[in-house]
Amino acid sequence: MAGDGSDQRALQYEQTLMYGRYTQELGVYAKEEAARLRESGQRRSVSDRSRALDLLEYDKGRCAKCRICTVRCQKFLISRVGEDWIFLILLGLLMALVSWVVDFCIAICLQAQKWMYGGLDSNVFLQYLAWVTYPVVLITFSAGFTQILAPQAVGSGIPEMKTILRGVVLKEYLTFKTFVAKVIGLTCALGSGMPLGKEGPFVHIASLCAALLSRFMSLFGGIYENESRNIEMLAAACAVGVGCCFAAPIGGVLFSIEVTSTFFAVRNYWRGFFAATFSAFIFRVLAVWNRDEETITALFKTRFRLDFPFDLQELPAFAVIGIASGFGGALFVYLNRLIVQFIRKQKAINRFLMKKRLLYPALVTLLVSTLTFPPGFGQFMAGKLTQKESLVTLLDNRTWAKQGIAEEFDYIGHSQAWKHPQVNVFVTLVLFIVMKFWMSALATTIPVPCGAFMPVFVIGAAFGRLVGESMAAWFPDGIHTDGTIYPIVPGGYAVVGAAALSGAVTHTVSTAVIVFELTGQISHILPVMIAVILANAVAQSLQPSLYDSIIRIKKLPYLPELGWGHHEKYNIRVEDIMVRDVRYITLNCCYRDLHNVLLTGQLKTLALVESAESMILLGSIERAQIQSLLSQQLGRARRLEYIRERAAAEKKRLSVISNPGSEDDSQRVSQEVRFQISTEESSFSPTRPIPQKPLKPALKRASVVERPTEIPTNSQDNSGIALKNLFCASPDTEGLEDDGDMEDDMTIREIAEWEEQQLDEQVNFNNCKIDPAPFQLVERTSLHKTHTIFSLLGLDHAYVTSIGRLIGVVSLKELRKAIEGSVTVKGVKVRPPLASFRDSGTSSSENEATELHKLWDRHKSMSLPREHTPSESDEKSQ
Amino acid sequence: MAGDGSDQRALQYEQTLMYGRYTQELGVYAKEEAARLRESGQRRSVSDRSRALDLLEYDKGRCAKCRICTVRCQKFLISRVGEDWIFLILLGLLMALVSWVVDFCIAICLQAQKWMYGGLDSNVFLQYLAWVTYPVVLITFSAGFTQILAPQAVGSGIPEMKTILRGVVLKEYLTFKTFVAKVIGLTCALGSGMPLGKEGPFVHIASLCAALLSRFMSLFGGIYENESRNIEMLAAACAVGVGCCFAAPIGGVLFSIEVTSTFFAVRNYWRGFFAATFSAFIFRVLAVWNRDEETITALFKTRFRLDFPFDLQELPAFAVIGIASGFGGALFVYLNRLIVQFIRKQKAINRFLMKKRLLYPALVTLLVSTLTFPPGFGQFMAGKLTQKESLVTLLDNRTWAKQGIAEEFDYIGHSQAWKHPQVNVFVTLVLFIVMKFWMSALATTIPVPCGAFMPVFVIGAAFGRLVGESMAAWFPDGIHTDGTIYPIVPGGYAVVGAAALSGAVTHTVSTAVIVFELTGQISHILPVMIAVILANAVAQSLQPSLYDSIIRIKKLPYLPELGWGHHEKYNIRVEDIMVRDVRYITLNCCYRDLHNVLLTGQLKTLALVESAESMILLGSIERAQIQSLLSQQLGRARRLEYIRERAAAEKKRLSVISNPGSEDDSQRVSQEVRFQISTEESSFSPTRPIPQKPLKPALKRASVVERPTEIPTNSQDNSGIALKNLFCASPDTEGLEDDGDMEDDMTIREIAEWEEQQLDEQVNFNNCKIDPAPFQLVERTSLHKTHTIFSLLGLDHAYVTSIGRLIGVVSLKELRKAIEGSVTVKGVKVRPPLASFRDSGTSSSENEATELHKLWDRHKSMSLPREHTPSESDEKSQ
Repeated sequence: MAGDGSDQRALQYEQTLMYGRYTQELGVYAKEEAARLRESGQRRSVSDRSRALDLLEYDKGRCAKCRICTVRCQKFLISRVGEDWIFLILLGLLMALVSWVVDFCIAICLQAQKWMYGGLDSNVFLQYLAWVTYPVVLITFSAGFTQILAPQAVGSGIPEMKTILRGVVLKEYLTFKTFVAKVIGLTCALGSGMPLGKEGPFVHIASLCAALLSRFMSLFGGIYENESRNIEMLAAACAVGVGCCFAAPIGGVLFSIEVTSTFFAVRNYWRGFFAATFSAFIFRVLAVWNRDEETITALFKTRFRLDFPFDLQELPAFAVIGIASGFGGALFVYLNRLIVQFIRKQKAINRFLMKKRLLYPALVTLLVSTLTFPPGFGQFMAGKLTQKESLVTLLDNRTWAKQGIAEEFDYIGHSQAWKHPQVNVFVTLVLFIVMKFWMSALATTIPVPCGAFMPVFVIGAAFGRLVGESMAAWFPDGIHTDGTIYPIVPGGYAVVGAAALSGAVTHTVSTAVIVFELTGQISHILPVMIAVILANAVAQSLQPSLYDSIIRIKKLPYLPELGWGHHEKYNIRVEDIMVRDVRYITLNCCYRDLHNVLLTGQLKTLALVESAESMILLGSIERAQIQSLLSQQLGRARRLEYIRERAAAEKKRLSVISNPGSEDDSQRVSQEVRFQISTEESSFSPTRPIPQKPLKPALKRASVVERPTEIPTNSQDNSGIALKNLFCASPDTEGLEDDGDMEDDMTIREIAEWEEQQLDEQVNFNNCKIDPAPFQLVERTSLHKTHTIFSLLGLDHAYVTSIGRLIGVVSLKELRKAIEGSVTVKGVKVRPPLASFRDSGTSSSENEATELHKLWDRHKSMSLPREHTPSESDEKSQ
Repeated sequence: MAGDGSDQRALQYEQTLMYGRYTQELGVYAKEEAARLRESGQRRSVSDRSRALDLLEYDKGRCAKCRICTVRCQKFLISRVGEDWIFLILLGLLMALVSWVVDFCIAICLQAQKWMYGGLDSNVFLQYLAWVTYPVVLITFSAGFTQILAPQAVGSGIPEMKTILRGVVLKEYLTFKTFVAKVIGLTCALGSGMPLGKEGPFVHIASLCAALLSRFMSLFGGIYENESRNIEMLAAACAVGVGCCFAAPIGGVLFSIEVTSTFFAVRNYWRGFFAATFSAFIFRVLAVWNRDEETITALFKTRFRLDFPFDLQELPAFAVIGIASGFGGALFVYLNRLIVQFIRKQKAINRFLMKKRLLYPALVTLLVSTLTFPPGFGQFMAGKLTQKESLVTLLDNRTWAKQGIAEEFDYIGHSQAWKHPQVNVFVTLVLFIVMKFWMSALATTIPVPCGAFMPVFVIGAAFGRLVGESMAAWFPDGIHTDGTIYPIVPGGYAVVGAAALSGAVTHTVSTAVIVFELTGQISHILPVMIAVILANAVAQSLQPSLYDSIIRIKKLPYLPELGWGHHEKYNIRVEDIMVRDVRYITLNCCYRDLHNVLLTGQLKTLALVESAESMILLGSIERAQIQSLLSQQLGRARRLEYIRERAAAEKKRLSVISNPGSEDDSQRVSQEVRFQISTEESSFSPTRPIPQKPLKPALKRASVVERPTEIPTNSQDNSGIALKNLFCASPDTEGLEDDGDMEDDMTIREIAEWEEQQLDEQVNFNNCKIDPAPFQLVERTSLHKTHTIFSLLGLDHAYVTSIGRLIGVVSLKELRKAIEGSVTVKGVKVRPPLASFRDSGTSSSENEATELHKLWDRHKSMSLPREHTPSESDEKSQ
């Protein structure tokens, strides 16, 4: 935008001005500057709008009325476009369309496969070839396409969304490329007929949609640039994703909350409901318009009887389904992780697969589709049916096996696939469950966009059906004894099983609601709820959820949940888990201290304390800020300056020899020089400098500058490059230094000396971005509360303070360890009293100091110019 | 418990020891002490258990095997009793029983009324008397009983639970008395047949149950004393309350979340589901066991057709219901508040009602029951039916008005009540809606335990029915045009209306889920969702929810929600709303400063800063702590001590006159005295004392002592009483002072002088409970984020700091104002630059100082002993 550019220029101009005006208090200036920027930002958006209106008037030169009307409409639309509900409606509409189109394409793909398979029924071998080649090609294309366009689109997406909603920024996960890759990859993957789901990817796709829509809408209004709003919209998008996938708005909202959030803002609730309802509505309306349905109904409608859905005495059977599903769910998660880890560990396989990335998907697809080949083994496991068809048959109202004999029920439609002339229905069901179980666990490891919810759901339904059919065979006339006969409905068991197994795998309770919305019946609410809760209880005590398991496999930053029976966590306190040996910077430290601190710490931020004795926490500074401070101090620009000054001094000395008595003049010269280029107040005097600054003025001067990019920019161009490199994470200053050595007449020895001097100067924090209120905990905060606060606020670390004094730091790592129990915190460790802590604190810092010294000495022996070291060491430590 | 007592003694002994060991650093000591206490607490609970086992073995001396078995069982049970699920099962069971018993009693009450009314059908006047007297007696009893036993039981209870879950402690709201009052009061109130609900009170009753159960269970295990656990259990209890009231576990959980929480911990989710499901299950099983039902089904089962529940073209009608319900809901809330405010404002009425507290309920009941008298006006509004009966008829499957003529449908059961020979069904429905609307709004203001959910639900159902019947009359053969005729189902409209109106009044979306669970059918999911969302959108933009409205009426501490379209809140920052003129205490202030600060501030806590110049925030101190510090300094014990010392000095002076040169001795004497009784390090030297303490040692000495009760306890008994009084919130030191004047030989003038001296001493914060890490915000934190943090962490206030410097404070009040818009914060105010702020800051503190001076001077002129003033002024300011 043109407005942006001119503003940028103005900003740069003012920055130059700022560095010139070194006499003014920079803190005050920065604040004023920020206020001015904010104002100008507002003005800019206003002027943008009016410009758009002007353009409109130029474009359309027809009749005045029409123009005025258009302008008014535009104005109204633009003023309304900022409202949440417009955004949510657009999101819902978009996602419903995407969901419907994807479903449509998948249906066409599957029909094509069936058609090919059916047309070649003269030759079994050709049939097999068609049956196998088709999915292999589709999956390979999907894997290749995703790999090339956006590898981030691989997999479910729910683990990533969970991480993003925790506040972690994952690069490239919310781009247009990923969107395209995910949608096309998913369509192909599901079109292949492999046991994969669309639910997880749809959560990701909806979030992508929301992020892109938000970026698009930010062309009109200002609020779309707000980060916390975007996070809220992403949470709503997750609900939309599930909602439009299953046409289940309530279940979608709840499932997305359970799966992605740790703490949920109730004010977000209506957003999710609104968008998901709208999306589900449009999704189903599209089906009505397409003449697939007569009116809006559930996706997998069941027709169980309403008057007596189940007997009270059937409840034990439902409970059994729940408990068994719990074990099954844990097994599924374990199996899935085992496969991934096995492939990773086997280096030979791994190397081979890395070379031929598409071979693994192809092989897995080949295996799975060979086994489901209907004339082959597939005949014993209803291999002919697609996922949707098998689910429909499993939820069927009728009983398949009266008295255990399969022949008795009348086959219509797809239900015939479950019948085998020689084999019992029970055997078919058991084979289906066992085969699909490992197939699904294997298939979800393929690097294509895919979820595991739907396959697990189908397996659960099959398991429930199995139990239901057994019950029906056991009690052919139902259990109820008074008068009327109410036969057992195996379909109801299938519903319960589906909810229980999918609940166990994902560790959610809301699968119950999804099941009600999918089937359109809520009559089995109590059995479903009981089974789901039991399944969750069992699964949660055995394994993490599938999504948490993937998060751990992918090593995303996460915080484990406090699950069932975490009550012992109430007794652990922060002081038991905190790191007492905190890296800190004092307000009046010298650059050498900064350098040393950078060499050792791992945390991304460092504590700023008043002094090493008082340890009063003033704020925290990011590593990058300290790097920039150091590089500014040791940078080439400053060195060149020093050389120039030295040359001037040399010249003057010579002139003094010739004309002694003009010292006043020389002082003026050096002052001028300083005025021209110095970026800092403190001059680069080579003497060991500046007595300890008093606290108060330093504090008054210290300021918060919001944008880190503003800071390193100073008026010199050549030093700017080196700094920029430092900021862009991969410092490539070596080359720069070499090419600069031509002008530089200092020897390496001289440079080292000069740097030593520079390092002894006191740090000036004026232009440094300081977080002025980092999060603080007290030593006695319980682990439980700490977990709450960390997950509530999405913290990465928190300082432990006691009356202003910094005494420790807790990061996600320590918390994770404490919760997972790798630190053996049985009961309460007796905390060392304050005195002993103080001793240990000083001793440890002494140790640290000697270690640092060693590092520094080793470093000295190397002849490289020293200004590279901070960034290098930082890279190592990161 | 015996163990407790001995521990208490040990504690007291150690405390005496602690005050004797005044040479040791108290901070360190307090920490060691706390560690020891924690350890001993653990040991105690272990020893308690083993003692219980020992007792068992004494009691049962039968056979060895049996004993061992019992002991093992006991051990197992005790080890398990701490688990959450045991607690939740007990809670669910208890609440199901309570709910069932209450329902049973209500049913009996209502039957009794019908029986009386039916038996007296010979005489209309007697009939009227019976019809009216019965509810008047019941309601009056309920009001009187509640008033006498526990006035806290009055009303719904949801607003109070919302406040409690925010972290505010409401006294007496969770006691056994309240439980009894609520249960009996509710039963009587609902038994009267007035339009009241049981849902809100059940949330309160469940919470009461949980609190009492938790207290009971704490006899066995330790974790029941944990506060954060109790809060989590209360959240689960709210879900149980709704769940067992409607047999709606899912809806219960969601409704309780929406109504009571701002941020919801997803880890609490399973707790709510588990307990609510169990509770609903038992509740329905009890009905089966009582032969009311054949099996577990929904409470208000509907039998709408599954294949074609509604036509797509009916959706506009559903939307109309939603929007109208939104307006209706807002009107209901407004009406309810208007009635309460009218009664409050009319002083004459108010005085009269305050005198005769039971008159208002009786009058309202008389009015309502007169109007519903079936042979009177009640015949036009189905007055004969109870709430439950009218709901059943409204959700009926059949169409009442074909072609607008009421006669056509066949009346069976209660549906007959809606038929009137002369009057159309539509008129009956309209009258029912209008009359019930204001009756419900009026009835819920009666001071008995009652909710408004169910009456509103019924009104909504009636409104939906009205629209449905109109549609059925308009399209007698349904709207659908191709082939089969699908007539319109007015019952479906009633379901939609009920969900929409109750959703609008409570500002919740989950009424949709409650409706599905109540009717046992989910076929109308999309119309219901659309109507509920529209109703919410309308109602939220017009009025607060009923519960928020009650919170405001009752002036409970609350934080308004950020509702629809709050996006402009993203642009307001904390600096725009914060109070810059913070009350603070410096580390080296004197007691006079404390006194002055107490005289002026309103906040319950005061900031502790390092010094007035640096303003580094070190912590916050509660008012009560400062009061105790002051009273310790100015207390009688110290004055007596001073007198004694003065007498000793006088004696010595006399002896010095007789025997000059024994100064060393006198010093020893004063030291001994100090050793005996001084609770503080600083001696009470009458000279203006002690140069400014250096920061570091003061900080090192400062400590966190957890229990406030530990602090004031010192070895002297008489001073202990005064302090205790100060701590028990109502200081009654006046009397104490009078009775102590006998020993006191100082004149008031002398006392004043002595106090002046004391006030000039520097404060010793050693024994003061300091919150060492109060919550801090940055100036640039947005209002949106501030709201999030306040509601997440249940904060009351937060300090605004900038690099350790305290620059402002934000309390709930400012936040509330900013959100509600009474502070006109349009867009972004240009923040004053730091310099001008500093000027205004100093000038304001100067103003403040002069004001304080005035206060102090005015105060001086009063001849009262000065040590009472801080607490007095505090009482006034609170």
